[in-house]
Amino acid sequence: MSDRILGVLGGMGPLASAHFMLRLTLLTPAARDQDHIPAVLWSDPRVPDRKLGHDGTGPDPLPALLRGIRGLEAAGCGAIAIPCNTAHGWFDRMRMKTDLPILHIVDAAAAELVRLGVRSGKIGLMGTAATLAMRLYQERLDYEVITPDDAEMATLVTPAIAEVKANRVADAYAPLAEMASRLVARGAQAVVLGCTEIPLGILAGPALPFPVADTIDGLARAAISWARPAG
Amino acid sequence: MSDRILGVLGGMGPLASAHFMLRLTLLTPAARDQDHIPAVLWSDPRVPDRKLGHDGTGPDPLPALLRGIRGLEAAGCGAIAIPCNTAHGWFDRMRMKTDLPILHIVDAAAAELVRLGVRSGKIGLMGTAATLAMRLYQERLDYEVITPDDAEMATLVTPAIAEVKANRVADAYAPLAEMASRLVARGAQAVVLGCTEIPLGILAGPALPFPVADTIDGLARAAISWARPAG
Repeated sequence: MSDRILGVLGGMGPLASAHFMLRLTLLTPAARDQDHIPAVLWSDPRVPDRKLGHDGTGPDPLPALLRGIRGLEAAGCGAIAIPCNTAHGWFDRMRMKTDLPILHIVDAAAAELVRLGVRSGKIGLMGTAATLAMRLYQERLDYEVITPDDAEMATLVTPAIAEVKANRVADAYAPLAEMASRLVARGAQAVVLGCTEIPLGILAGPALPFPVADTIDGLARAAISWARPAG
Repeated sequence: MSDRILGVLGGMGPLASAHFMLRLTLLTPAARDQDHIPAVLWSDPRVPDRKLGHDGTGPDPLPALLRGIRGLEAAGCGAIAIPCNTAHGWFDRMRMKTDLPILHIVDAAAAELVRLGVRSGKIGLMGTAATLAMRLYQERLDYEVITPDDAEMATLVTPAIAEVKANRVADAYAPLAEMASRLVARGAQAVVLGCTEIPLGILAGPALPFPVADTIDGLARAAISWARPAG
């Protein structure tokens, strides 16, 4: 039984953070309640839009993110997981303001790629326009990262993410599956679902016939490793 | 946009509370993140076993429940939902120790029955042995409540609840569906899934051909009504 309490800074979006809690539970080896990992989910969907904050056309989300971190600290959490890729654009600014370790979702995605047997070469990345513009994956990973073009973002990826945030999960499958297939056709060996709304859309339809790195599952596995270090 | 923050005292079990967060989100009318309900989930699976606590053969869960309530108060929550039926055996003792309203899951189940068109008469109840022994439904509702017998609890219901807590959700379907069907054969107009692990098992297979009152969905609807009062 672990006394390490995981802090989850969520709500971005709330469906993705609920799904993260579900996957955290299902991926934990457990025979009864008391074997599971204690966790506090701070699900604050009022955090200002990360894209507008990045563009400078809306309020900075940092104060709301730090409010959540303060809440998780007060709850006795020992580490923080943030099931939102875009929020990692504020990773360094958050890390400077807390003594708790923050599990980085891009590192978790990289571990998923290794788990899938993809250790180098070309990978596809789907994410929000802000995640792509901030180059969160390109600057942290050694893979060659290919991404949707602007027209594909506008017609396929961005509308699908919005469908999930509006609870229309099934409608997100077709455009996301189409975009992932295009990236594979351009040479990607695997596709990173680099926005936590995207796995929800992809799970709503038939499994894709190529490797996908799910950032929700990856972050859940990273959290389990933190809570239950081997040895 | 709501500034009412829902406190969720969860972890009993953790899969049920994660599913509660998912249903809370999916049942909320929302077009974007910021339309969803702010919530803090205190998922503490270390809360001592409620059945053993009730029997007096294990530690009292009350101190752990109150620790969670203190955490939710400190996080600024305005009400508490507890997605665990058995924990409601400690409802009065919790209510005496907090100024926050606690949404009662049995009242939420009653609202689900009304929503299903079942306003009186005989209903079936599946739940933990402790929920049945404490007569949580019988003493709060005006329906005639019929329940599994001891042999059915030992062979069908109790093992199925344990399967869900051990992440073997699919294995829980057959025994739970069988038990629900038996209660309907004995005259129940609807069956209350009166343990929050039970809807997870029932959702893992084909829909049942009679009305079921899902206490996770019922509690989620009660929480949405609290967060977004009409008018």
